[in-house]
Parts: sequence; C-alpha cells; structure tokens
Amino acid sequence: MRMLSRSRLGPCNASGGGGPGARTAGAMVPHLVPRQLVWLCRRQVACARGASVQHRTWAGVSGAPSLLSPWRATVTSPLVCRSSSSTPPSAPKVVLTQERYPVTRLPFSVVSEDDLAAFERIVPGRVITDPEVLEASNVDWLRTVRGCSKVLLRPRTSQEVAHILRYCHERNLAVNPQGGNTGMVGGSVPVFDEIILSTALMNEVISFHSVSGTLVCQAGCVLEELSRYVEERGFVMPLDLGAKGSCHIGGNVATNAGGLRFLRYGSLHGTVLGLEVVLADGTVLNCLSSLRKDNTGYDLKQLFIGSEGTLGVITAVSIQCPPKPRAVNVAFLGCPGFAEVLQTFTTCKGLLGEILSAYEFMDAECMWLVTRHLRLASPVQESPFYVLIETSGSRAGHDAEKLSDFLDQVLSSGLVTDGTVATDQMKLKALWALRERISEALSRDGYVYKYDLSLPTERLYDLVPDLRARLGSRAKHVVGYGHLGDGNLHLNVTSEAFSPSLLDALEPYVYEWTARQRGSVSAEHGLGFKKRGVLGYSKPPEALRLMQQLKALLDPKGILNPYKTLPAQA
Amino acid sequence: MRMLSRSRLGPCNASGGGGPGARTAGAMVPHLVPRQLVWLCRRQVACARGASVQHRTWAGVSGAPSLLSPWRATVTSPLVCRSSSSTPPSAPKVVLTQERYPVTRLPFSVVSEDDLAAFERIVPGRVITDPEVLEASNVDWLRTVRGCSKVLLRPRTSQEVAHILRYCHERNLAVNPQGGNTGMVGGSVPVFDEIILSTALMNEVISFHSVSGTLVCQAGCVLEELSRYVEERGFVMPLDLGAKGSCHIGGNVATNAGGLRFLRYGSLHGTVLGLEVVLADGTVLNCLSSLRKDNTGYDLKQLFIGSEGTLGVITAVSIQCPPKPRAVNVAFLGCPGFAEVLQTFTTCKGLLGEILSAYEFMDAECMWLVTRHLRLASPVQESPFYVLIETSGSRAGHDAEKLSDFLDQVLSSGLVTDGTVATDQMKLKALWALRERISEALSRDGYVYKYDLSLPTERLYDLVPDLRARLGSRAKHVVGYGHLGDGNLHLNVTSEAFSPSLLDALEPYVYEWTARQRGSVSAEHGLGFKKRGVLGYSKPPEALRLMQQLKALLDPKGILNPYKTLPAQA
Repeated sequence: MRMLSRSRLGPCNASGGGGPGARTAGAMVPHLVPRQLVWLCRRQVACARGASVQHRTWAGVSGAPSLLSPWRATVTSPLVCRSSSSTPPSAPKVVLTQERYPVTRLPFSVVSEDDLAAFERIVPGRVITDPEVLEASNVDWLRTVRGCSKVLLRPRTSQEVAHILRYCHERNLAVNPQGGNTGMVGGSVPVFDEIILSTALMNEVISFHSVSGTLVCQAGCVLEELSRYVEERGFVMPLDLGAKGSCHIGGNVATNAGGLRFLRYGSLHGTVLGLEVVLADGTVLNCLSSLRKDNTGYDLKQLFIGSEGTLGVITAVSIQCPPKPRAVNVAFLGCPGFAEVLQTFTTCKGLLGEILSAYEFMDAECMWLVTRHLRLASPVQESPFYVLIETSGSRAGHDAEKLSDFLDQVLSSGLVTDGTVATDQMKLKALWALRERISEALSRDGYVYKYDLSLPTERLYDLVPDLRARLGSRAKHVVGYGHLGDGNLHLNVTSEAFSPSLLDALEPYVYEWTARQRGSVSAEHGLGFKKRGVLGYSKPPEALRLMQQLKALLDPKGILNPYKTLPAQA
Repeated sequence: MRMLSRSRLGPCNASGGGGPGARTAGAMVPHLVPRQLVWLCRRQVACARGASVQHRTWAGVSGAPSLLSPWRATVTSPLVCRSSSSTPPSAPKVVLTQERYPVTRLPFSVVSEDDLAAFERIVPGRVITDPEVLEASNVDWLRTVRGCSKVLLRPRTSQEVAHILRYCHERNLAVNPQGGNTGMVGGSVPVFDEIILSTALMNEVISFHSVSGTLVCQAGCVLEELSRYVEERGFVMPLDLGAKGSCHIGGNVATNAGGLRFLRYGSLHGTVLGLEVVLADGTVLNCLSSLRKDNTGYDLKQLFIGSEGTLGVITAVSIQCPPKPRAVNVAFLGCPGFAEVLQTFTTCKGLLGEILSAYEFMDAECMWLVTRHLRLASPVQESPFYVLIETSGSRAGHDAEKLSDFLDQVLSSGLVTDGTVATDQMKLKALWALRERISEALSRDGYVYKYDLSLPTERLYDLVPDLRARLGSRAKHVVGYGHLGDGNLHLNVTSEAFSPSLLDALEPYVYEWTARQRGSVSAEHGLGFKKRGVLGYSKPPEALRLMQQLKALLDPKGILNPYKTLPAQA
C-alpha cells in the first residue's frame, strides 16, 4: 500500500504571514504586501459600477518579506549578489488593464454584502477585502496588468472550492483562480472585479510513494517546496522553472509550464498522472489517479492541463517524479556565434546522449542585463552567446567522462571559446542563476514586451537581429534566450515605459514572422489575457471553434477566468 | 526548413495485394483473406434489416499471406521456430457479437445502393463489398467478436475521409474506423453493420526532420515500417509493441497504446506533437503541429489520444522520435519468486538508472505456452518467474559496465538464479520474442479471457495465484506477465471454448479486486466493445458524465465507432 505522509508545506495562512517560516522562505507568501510597497495601494479604484464592499481585517502584514519577484531568492554564491528589492519605491503605478486595453466588462453580478457573508460561511476568516492586501493579487508580478477585485478567498480544501464555485455559478459571479501569480501573460490576475480564488492555503502533500516516486498533493504547494520534499526522498520534480520559489504546482499544470527540465522529462501532459478539478458549477471531478497507465475512457485530465483555469479549477495534482540523479554537472560555455550554438547542441546530443538534461542559451545582451541589474558576475570571458548545459546521470565517473569528451571536442573545434564546469551545489546554482534570473533582470530594465515563441531550431535566433534593426533606438534592449533544446525562444524587448507605438512596431510583426515559420506564438507561457488575441496565428479556425465549444460545455456562464485564453469574440 | 520526404510505406493498395511487397511483408495487408480462411466466409449473415448490398469486385486476394496474427513475423533466430499459420483451418467460426452479447442496434440508416454509388464517387475503386474480403475486417484478430458490415472503404487522403464522414453524418450512417485491427477489446471491428473505414492506404510519410527527429505521417503507416524508416535515419519510434508488424500509428494513437518502451519514453500524451483529425461531421481539425512546445490554447489533440475513434478519425500524426541508442543490451533472467522480481527491479533502477529502457516479467506458465505453442526455446533454466531487462544508451562501454555491476549484484544476492545477455540484433530479437509473443501463444491455447490491469507494483501478481485457486480446473491456464516497470499486469485465462460460467467466475471478481487496489481495469488496451461496461470500476460518475457530454458535443449523432468506449447507457 501507499506510504501516506500528510504534511503541510510552508507557513502560509492568513494569520501567520509574519511567522518564522515566512521569514526564511519569503517567496512563499506572495499575497502579503511589503512595507515599501504599501504606497502603491493608496488610490482606490472603483471599477465595477454598483460595487460596495467593506474592508475586512487582515493579520500578518508587517514584517513580511519582499514578494514582487517570484524568482528564487536562495542563490548564495560568490558569483551572485542579490539586490535588496525587486521593485524600487519609485516604480510607477501599474495602469488598470481596463484603461490600457480595449476590453469590456461582461455582465457578471457584482459582489454584494450578502455574497461576502456567504463566503464567510464557506471559508470563515479567509475572506480578504482589505484593498492594500488585495493590491498584490490584483497586479501581475511583471507589473503590466492590473485588475480591481474587491475580494480574495483562501479555501483550504477542494470541498471549499466546490462550495465557492457552486455559489458563484448560481450568482453569476466571475472568478479568477490564482496560484503563485507568476504568469507572464496576465492570466493570473483579474481584468475587472473578478473574485480572486487563491490556492495559497491548499499546500498539503497528500501522499508520496517512495518506490514509484508518485507524488499527490494539493494545488497550492509551491514548486520549490515540493522539489525539496521529493529530493529528500530520492526523487526530483519533473519540472523546474525560474519562478519555482513562488509558483504553485496547480498553476504550473493549469498553464502547462515547460521550464528547464522539459528537454529531459518532457511535457506535463506526460508526467501528470491525475488531477482533481472543480468545475464551474461546483462539481468535483476526481481524476486523481496515481497510475502510470490508465486507458479507461477519455483522458479527461488532459483537458485542464494548459487551460489556464478557464475550464475548471485544479485542486490537486498527482505527478510522476523521476529518480534523483546521483551526479549533476553544469557547463557554462561561451560561443562565438549562433551557428556554433547550434553545432554545439548537435555535438552535445551525440556525446552526452541520455544524460543531457538541459541545453539553454542566452545572448550577450542578456549577460549584460544580469550583470548590470542583478550584479551577477559572468564566469566566462565575454562572448556573443552563452550556453548552459546540464547533465544528470546515475554514475558520476561515466558522466564526467562523457562530459569531458564533449568539452574536448567543442573546445578543440572552436565551437566553444571559453567555459566553466560545476559539480558542487553552490556553483551549480550560481551558474543556473545567470540563466534563470534573466527575466527578473529584464523587469528591472523598464517596461518589457515579452514573446515566447516556438520556432524551427535552425532559425531560432534570426528574429532577434531582425528586430534590433527594425526598432533601432526605440527599444532599450532586444534580447534572445531560452530553451534551445526545445526550440523555444524567449524574445524580450525593453523600453523606459509602455509605448503604444513601440507595440505597433512589434505586433503583429513578431506574430506574422512566427506564423511564416509555422511556429507557435506561445511556446510555454500560455495566452492568458495578453496573448489571447493572437491565437489565430498558430491555430486554425476549426480549433478555435472547438475551444469555444469546450468552454461553453464546461463553463456555460463563462465565470471561470473570463477575458483569458479564448479570443474576445468567445 | 524541414526536410520533406514524401514516401509511401508498404505496398498496400486495392490492386496490389499480391505484389512482391506483400509477399515480403505479409503483416502489412491485414484486409486480405488467406486461402485457408475462405471457408469462414461462406455463411452470409443478414444482420441489418433492409440491408441490400451487392458484391463488388476485389483484386489481389489470391496468394496473399496469412494475416490473422498481428504479431511480428520477422524473428529468425536459432531460438525461434514459427509455426506456419496463426489460426488452424479447424478453428471454430466466431459467433456474431450481437448473438453473444446483449447489445441492440441503434437506429442508424442502412447502407443503400445509392450510398455505395456515392462512396464510389468519393473513393473510386476502393469500395469493398465482397463478403469474403470483408470477413477479415469484421472479425477481431483474437477471434472473439464479429460484426457484419457490408462495406469497407479505403480512402487515401484526409479529404476523402472528410467527404466520407460528411456524407455518413448527413445520412446517419454509422462508421467503424479501422487501423491494423490488432486491438484486444473488440474496438476495431463493427458490432453490427457499421461501415468500415480503413486507414490501410493512408500510409505515407509526410515529413521527417533529421535534426529534431520529428516524424509526420499518415495514420495508416504500419508501426514496424515507421520504426525501420526512422532507424535508418538515426532515431527510434517512442513506442514498440508486439503487434508492430500490423498495427497502424493512427490506431496506436487512437487507443493510446502503451507497449514496451513506455518505461523509457513515456505516454503518447507526451510524445505525440500533433494530430490531424476528421470530426464526425467531416470537419478537418488540423492540429498537426510538429513543435515540441505549443501553449496556444487548449491542447485539443489530447482529446483524441485514447478516444478509440469515438470522437474523430485520426488521419495524420506528428510524433517526437528519440535518438537511436548506440548500444542496446537485453538480459533475460530467471527469478525464484515474485518478491525477487520486485527487488531485482529496485536494484535495476538504482544501478542502470537512465539507460534502463524496459523491465518486463512473465511467469512460468507463460514460458510453457510460448515453448509449447510457438516452439520457442527458453534460454535459461526453468524458473517460477522470468524478467527481461533492456538497456539503451549512448556509450557501449559505460552501459556494459553498469549492466555487469547490476548482474553481479543480483546473481550474488540470489535475486536471480540464471540469466543470459544479448547485444547482437538476432539474439536480442529472439529474447524479445519470448515476451512479445505470449499473447499469440495464448490465442492458440483456446478461448482467451484477457485482463489488462494497472495495479500497485508490490501487489501486481497477487491476483494470479488467487484466480488459479478460485477457478481450479475450469481454466486451462491462468497466467500473468507484463510491464512491471509501469505497474501493468496482463492477466490471461484460457479455456477450450468460450464459457459463460467461467466468465461469471471471472467477472466482476477481477474488476472488483482491481477497484479495491484503486487500480485501472484497462491499463493500455482501452475499453473498445468488450470493456466499456466496466469503466465504472475505475472512473467516478462525474467522469462518465463528462465523457458522454464530450461525445455528444463532438459526435451528436453518435455515428463514430458506436457501441464502443462509452457505457451502453450513453
């Protein structure tokens, strides 16, 4: 029988935000507001006519750590110097989404006093209406979109989620499911006054099977906490991403997160074994199987992986964890050109074979940004491109021999001009930080236009120099980095502030370019609010129609995460 | 850009069944009827009132090879002696499904002369109505179910499939999509007079990308042919199964086939990158992406993986092929008990790590059956259990060292009492044949009651001795084998002929036993016709309801593979 270990991960609860756990794991309390950010919350915005909501109590605000960056805050290495705050106090206020974008509120009901009383009966003491507290849940971490929700609910169980949704369905109240709020496309915050349904308190491990490595847990478990939990038991999570310190596993599954281990362990469509989902009308759909194989009928859980909370709220996840590799090596290399980056990849696949677990690349401008804004130090001499290669294997000697042969070959052939290799944990993390924290560095550079494209590997970088020439001095930086092994480019453009004309120069140009290569306009970030209009560049009309039919079937009133994923006509 | 290579795989076409290709690759022409089986087709059955269908011409029947066994026919090794025919001429006639099972024909239209004329316009020369030819497509290869379809259509393109379905949808004609007809649960043959829509002529490779290993092909490509195609280019198919010589990739995807490489490369939900599907009304849904990552909206292709042709007809597949391993080893070992089989697995995972690609087991009765019925020879001394372990890696020396250390440990500790290791292709195939051909040996032993269960690994074999005691002399053999690494038991019971009382002793006992372990009553075979009634042992009512809603959404008239997958109430 299964070894059950029911343990609560992390200290998050409404009254314990300032406890010792929160002090040591700051990134785990994303809904708390740090002192220096309270100024952001002063101006009240009335965005739903007729809304009349009183402020409720909130405990534990003081002493909470910085939260605006979801990026891991635990890297401590000679190479890494963290700055003290993710967002400077002088940061401009985020414009309301409804003011920046052409979007109209749908005719949902407005939360009333009676509704709040009903919620208080369902999740007593966990109905949050203090606008200062709500601010952090209304704004995305990139500070590009902002809703004006008046209420945040923090259920602890699937049954509470079911009660909430049943109530909202009857009352025609819109709901914005929220995990760690680390999304890139505005999918995790309200657009108007949707009720925020947070999974933060649903952070229990339900079971872990120590032979098979099957983990079953609630949706609000923080990815990094789960990683620690399974690593102590000889396994690893099949996914890893920069936002691991804040993101929730439920949010990872809802957005079909890709990340840094995709190359080795593949998609969540393969590694997620089961889900528990609460449907829009409050029905609990239990597909929480922990079997590796189950062909009894349609694989319903697949519908919800990547549906961004628009078809149901994921409340629990069963996931297959691979064995923890006994040996991990990271090589950080400098390459003279993108052609060499590609050739190094081909060489690497041949010589490292089954132990290759990551092949990431970044350009020189990315390195400039992380060294400048995050004060990280480059471990290799300046190069036009950098590559991070990770191996994970079961036998250190064999892996070292394979890696050494590979490095000999790429150095002697001139594909790589400089490099460093790490095997100890501290240096591994420091090297990974250079790649993982690019997004954080970008967000400190100004307003960021983010594109997350799947492209044919051989053309993966072409769009970056093309855009630099096109945009000229209008952009501060145009950078390219990403998961080369998966054909996934993160293309980012920064400017001092949001500029409609710069946006016009970028879109639809970037999407049209991508469509011509038969690429995807969203490789791993999803569509959320910001990309839902560009779906047509990667999907034919028949697919859009079927998506809309599925939405109508599963959420006929459209209350789940409205204004997201599906095009506005839906 | 992609390297496109449009090549037709296999010789299948209506007029070329007896051509040279067919002679050398007999398993590729599953719809032809061998001479010795023609006797089966003599008796005409009128099963749809009002049906009046004339016989059409058919070319190429004579000289066609035996086809009733889908199992690979290419093993040539000192260890292996194939018998000359899968089904002896004295085999009893298969009882009509409608006579054996309580099932009522739904009010679909009956194929008329006008319909045949319309089909002839859509697929000229590929409308088959000769009852002798139809017989092979009306009966499953296990010879347990039998429909009485009067017409078989052989489209070559997705557009032809779309025209056919659009017509059938308008006319309310039921359709049975058929690939290699190698299913285990009666899903691939008609129950009544459904039109058989064969993918046999849709056997072209559309493209193969030699760097990424992405294969795009039509649904009717035979798995073994595809394996050969990609292996010549340095890759392997991510799935492999005993029926590879006949099964179609479209059928594999439609049934979410698991098979022998599942342990290493995972589920088709992870390795299939895209699908083209024709919906019930003839709409072509093009989700034939060949990108590793694409998060633009709901992952619609997932709906069709494992839906057994009840939601749409898969016409093309895009699939990620892993690099061909440079070194493959197979160890065939004898174990003194099932506890030792489990401990050997744990040892194996630890010492072989990332190079482990299969861990299969079989009991002594399985070995008796393959040696008796197929005249294979056991390569090791008689043992209560046998284990087949495969490693696939990039460096022969490293792999051999890992395997040698593993074998030293399991032999010295007494977990394994005898064994043999193979590295050359011939011996590898011979060892695999012992495991792969068990199902074929069973089918020669008599009527086979097949169960394909997912169970907790530590209890995987418990049901086998339990059933032996329960059934006593009523069963000829009760055997257990399967994919231990995936927690998947193939439990098979044989008797001289079909016996309702033996069935009563087996069911629902087996299903209830499985449900108590929270297992799956169909790990990889699917539900088809024979298992659709037992879905409720593994799925809650909410899941069944959603399945029915999805069926109603995608196929409102229910014309696609009726009487399959969904419970009869649907």
